[in-house]
Amino acid sequence: MMPFIYKRTVRFRDTDAAGVVYFANVLAMCHEACEESLAASGINLKAFFSNPEVVIPVVHASVDFLRPMFCGDHLLIHLMTKQCSYNEFEIAYEVLAAEANKIVAKAFTRHVCINPTSRTRKELPAEILQWFQQWEV
Amino acid sequence: MMPFIYKRTVRFRDTDAAGVVYFANVLAMCHEACEESLAASGINLKAFFSNPEVVIPVVHASVDFLRPMFCGDHLLIHLMTKQCSYNEFEIAYEVLAAEANKIVAKAFTRHVCINPTSRTRKELPAEILQWFQQWEV
Amino acid sequence: MMPFIYKRTVRFRDTDAAGVVYFANVLAMCHEACEESLAASGINLKAFFSNPEVVIPVVHASVDFLRPMFCGDHLLIHLMTKQCSYNEFEIAYEVLAAEANKIVAKAFTRHVCINPTSRTRKELPAEILQWFQQWEV
Amino acid sequence: MMPFIYKRTVRFRDTDAAGVVYFANVLAMCHEACEESLAASGINLKAFFSNPEVVIPVVHASVDFLRPMFCGDHLLIHLMTKQCSYNEFEIAYEVLAAEANKIVAKAFTRHVCINPTSRTRKELPAEILQWFQQWEV
Repeated sequence: MMPFIYKRTVRFRDTDAAGVVYFANVLAMCHEACEESLAASGINLKAFFSNPEVVIPVVHASVDFLRPMFCGDHLLIHLMTKQCSYNEFEIAYEVLAAEANKIVAKAFTRHVCINPTSRTRKELPAEILQWFQQWEV
Repeated sequence: MMPFIYKRTVRFRDTDAAGVVYFANVLAMCHEACEESLAASGINLKAFFSNPEVVIPVVHASVDFLRPMFCGDHLLIHLMTKQCSYNEFEIAYEVLAAEANKIVAKAFTRHVCINPTSRTRKELPAEILQWFQQWEV
Repeated sequence: MMPFIYKRTVRFRDTDAAGVVYFANVLAMCHEACEESLAASGINLKAFFSNPEVVIPVVHASVDFLRPMFCGDHLLIHLMTKQCSYNEFEIAYEVLAAEANKIVAKAFTRHVCINPTSRTRKELPAEILQWFQQWEV
Repeated sequence: MMPFIYKRTVRFRDTDAAGVVYFANVLAMCHEACEESLAASGINLKAFFSNPEVVIPVVHASVDFLRPMFCGDHLLIHLMTKQCSYNEFEIAYEVLAAEANKIVAKAFTRHVCINPTSRTRKELPAEILQWFQQWEV
């Protein structure tokens, strides 16, 4: 299967005084790719992110930086879903410089499905399982 | 009366590739000063910002940039409450470079009290009126 | 003439605990529209934003918030250049909810061309004057 | 030896529409702790972060989220330097909720010293080695 691909231009606000993208913003861009893949699977983001019964927070994130990213750079973020149990899943991301076709960063997030009030684990919603299968590599 | 004074060090994430603070982040720093002044008046921020009955969004903001701010700069943000009706108020901010004692930016925000569900105006809570009077100049 | 139009989906990171876009992030989105309009006029953003001889910082910004914006909302940001002298210019922005075709925010920025080392005013580069004329309404 | 401790109040801008701190912002807070520890060791942050000869970018970051963080929460970020060769070092962070005295997140960053133009590795400056030893546990 194919990964989901999210196109993203590096913005001025993504950068810092070293002239390149601020490290933590790369994880934020990966999360944008996740949001866009959810929308591409027909999930209503507004409803999903304000659901009072289910939230799926990130419980672990890691990222490796291979090359610097500059304002105006065109990025392609490849998203691949990985490993899924009934209440958690993982996502792998590869961030590529579009013109150079080189990997500039790799990231990874693990998400757990919980009830936002009790903060106890619960089953992943059916629409998330469908999304997961769509972008599994 | 005295303004509320909030101390803030410029952080690397506040800056952009021009080597200085990204313009919109100055308004975010002013909002931090507002939060700190609310806490100083005894308001519980967690409860205040997750109240399902009352929110007090910014409806207007403006900011003038007089001098550049660099990573590591020590800022003093002076907050003064201004103009208050039963359902809205205004805040003026002066951002000073602590060592140079020079104004680096001036900002202004107007806030309206609403019900977050209906988004119609409602009366300011009593604790906000008290906070307002405490920092009125 | 037509305004420049920038399409932008509201991201989770743009929002705050009130469930809507954090106020200062609307100005950041408008700046993204500015960057995209510069790129559309053939300006190399990486070179432009790391030019050691010329920077064009924001010296004033203001924004009015008319309606809340939620994660996943599709926005259209209309950019119109306004008022230009040899060393400064102004930009007006209208942020529309794409589906509802309603204005959700209006913003305004003023920019001054300076030498980043001396921080004294200098003439706007020719490519910026061309960009300005292209999106003047 | 003792870790460096950085006090940080959770700000509204740190949160997202799920009502808690946006995941990537926890890494940004840890970087703030790093900046503050550098300043505490006598390093001039403005000079350090705009040095045209030496930059020390993050090449790897990871973070585990144990408990949610809310607007207004008082955090204590413990910073401990780890593993150091002549051109790279690692930092471990523990983020604690101050009142509850519970760990809410753990993070880790690896940094490499490079020349920002050639992007090749170079020796860590003497002041960084001193800082490293001061906060080694």
